[in-house]
Amino acid sequence: MKAVQLTRYSASLEGLACVDIDEPPPPGAGEVTIEIDASPIHPADLLSLTGSYASPLPLPLVPGGEATGRIVAVGPGVDAFAVGDRAMPLSRGNWVERRTVPVSDVIAVPNGDPLQLAMLKVVPATAHLMLTSIVDLPEGCGVIQNAANSSVGLAAIRLAERMGVTMINVVRREELIDDLVAYGASNAFLDDSDLEDHVRAAFGDGQIRLAIDAVAGEASLRLSECLSPGGTMVNFGLLSGEPCMVRPYRTIFEGIKLTGFWVSKYIASAERAELEALYADLAKLVIDGVISTPIEASYPIAEAMDAIRHAGGFRRSGKVMILPNG
Amino acid sequence: MKAVQLTRYSASLEGLACVDIDEPPPPGAGEVTIEIDASPIHPADLLSLTGSYASPLPLPLVPGGEATGRIVAVGPGVDAFAVGDRAMPLSRGNWVERRTVPVSDVIAVPNGDPLQLAMLKVVPATAHLMLTSIVDLPEGCGVIQNAANSSVGLAAIRLAERMGVTMINVVRREELIDDLVAYGASNAFLDDSDLEDHVRAAFGDGQIRLAIDAVAGEASLRLSECLSPGGTMVNFGLLSGEPCMVRPYRTIFEGIKLTGFWVSKYIASAERAELEALYADLAKLVIDGVISTPIEASYPIAEAMDAIRHAGGFRRSGKVMILPNG
Repeated sequence: MKAVQLTRYSASLEGLACVDIDEPPPPGAGEVTIEIDASPIHPADLLSLTGSYASPLPLPLVPGGEATGRIVAVGPGVDAFAVGDRAMPLSRGNWVERRTVPVSDVIAVPNGDPLQLAMLKVVPATAHLMLTSIVDLPEGCGVIQNAANSSVGLAAIRLAERMGVTMINVVRREELIDDLVAYGASNAFLDDSDLEDHVRAAFGDGQIRLAIDAVAGEASLRLSECLSPGGTMVNFGLLSGEPCMVRPYRTIFEGIKLTGFWVSKYIASAERAELEALYADLAKLVIDGVISTPIEASYPIAEAMDAIRHAGGFRRSGKVMILPNG
Repeated sequence: MKAVQLTRYSASLEGLACVDIDEPPPPGAGEVTIEIDASPIHPADLLSLTGSYASPLPLPLVPGGEATGRIVAVGPGVDAFAVGDRAMPLSRGNWVERRTVPVSDVIAVPNGDPLQLAMLKVVPATAHLMLTSIVDLPEGCGVIQNAANSSVGLAAIRLAERMGVTMINVVRREELIDDLVAYGASNAFLDDSDLEDHVRAAFGDGQIRLAIDAVAGEASLRLSECLSPGGTMVNFGLLSGEPCMVRPYRTIFEGIKLTGFWVSKYIASAERAELEALYADLAKLVIDGVISTPIEASYPIAEAMDAIRHAGGFRRSGKVMILPNG
């Protein structure tokens, strides 16, 4: 069967290829085999390939942060899953046709569009948890986010709307403002030196309690300047490659805080029941179309290198997917 | 009587002078009159004079963030203070011979060196509260601070020692390392690009849970890199004039947080009993010489402009004091 395999970390991805590897072993006690339907290529995946995301894992490895698939074999003692069930692995290593994994590593997923459900683990969970676990967001208050056109940004727009919270959307390219308005976003601003003035003019005395930063660098500085006193900036992305920035005036005199969020850390520490409940709720929102991530292209696994180059290009308007059995 | 008066915010301090003003009114009900013995010139005072500290106050005003003095008149209904008591005003406006203030604005101070006690409100309280209110610091763990030769830095060295916590001291000039060693500091490093390596070599696997940042800018970036995963950086100073910086890698994957501290905000929100207890404890440490801030020069109030220029100069080795009745 085919898998994408990484044998060396490098910026040029020379150590990455789609190769033929052995079928996974049949499931042992407490294990299942999943046939992977679809897996997205996230910015985090691209950084992982070069060794620049979290702690680089030992090589060789199969990349792919998340996926959805179907159970095709069930090991002894497994009663939570049956052959044919849709499921999502919690662990990395999904750019492969089939995987055998422990059931503790698998969350059941209802029937639905496999491409959208392939983005259940990271995107809506990141947006939901940043909106609910960092600060209290009473109805009517505001949240500001940059990279608002990202998949997490789009999910956050819909989730904020359901919470009665005003999402203030910041993007780095003028033309994305129209896209956001078409998506239903009511506040969209260009990330330039006038950002704070424009946001204040639009939001008046409203309390902006949370800033969601995917970019860092000067973009985080501009975002933090829009926070109301006492607000918190949560950083979850490294798109600029630069340090997060907050003016000391704001930390000292206005109580602005900076914190970080990483969904993998949450997953590793959450109780099983909590994860099941979270993903059941979020899967419903995905299946109902409340959360829907634009998809620009899908590639069979044999063309994974083309998919990865496509995902790394500029000015995409949606995710690039790998379909290991597509 | 004489007072320093600020009539205009400007970098060149043109609107600042020592002038003759009316004596304060005799104390009314619940008020006392304090004769000011000594008041330090802090970096925060210098920034206040140019309008760059917190929210600039309405002009004209008498500057001076803190002081110690003696009660020289007591209004009706005041039984907590008697004429002759030593006291410290909690409010700003201390570069003046005498002030009449409400008793709610005054903390009793025991007898001791008036110059050292004139720095009780800000310096030891800032050091103590940053060490005790931001994160848990179990015995044996480490705290790293920059501007370690500052008055807050020196107080923090002594307070950390009493807590059984290892203070790691960072300074911007090589020659200050000897000064710190002479003061009794056991870990002192130059703030350069090798800081993290040097700190790790010295502190090994020890947990560095707190970073105390008075400088911001690149200095805060270097300091935050020394924190152990899960650690917090608390910023209380603006010495570089640049934004605080933390790498997103550290916020996202290693749980590093940034927060701020401002003693005035603490004082404004603390209960009276809490303030009295805090300052009674800290005054004892000052009187016992545990906390002692080097003093480089003292000036009578008529020479306040010289004092302020002196305080704003580089390479001082101690505080510059104004003695309104000296």
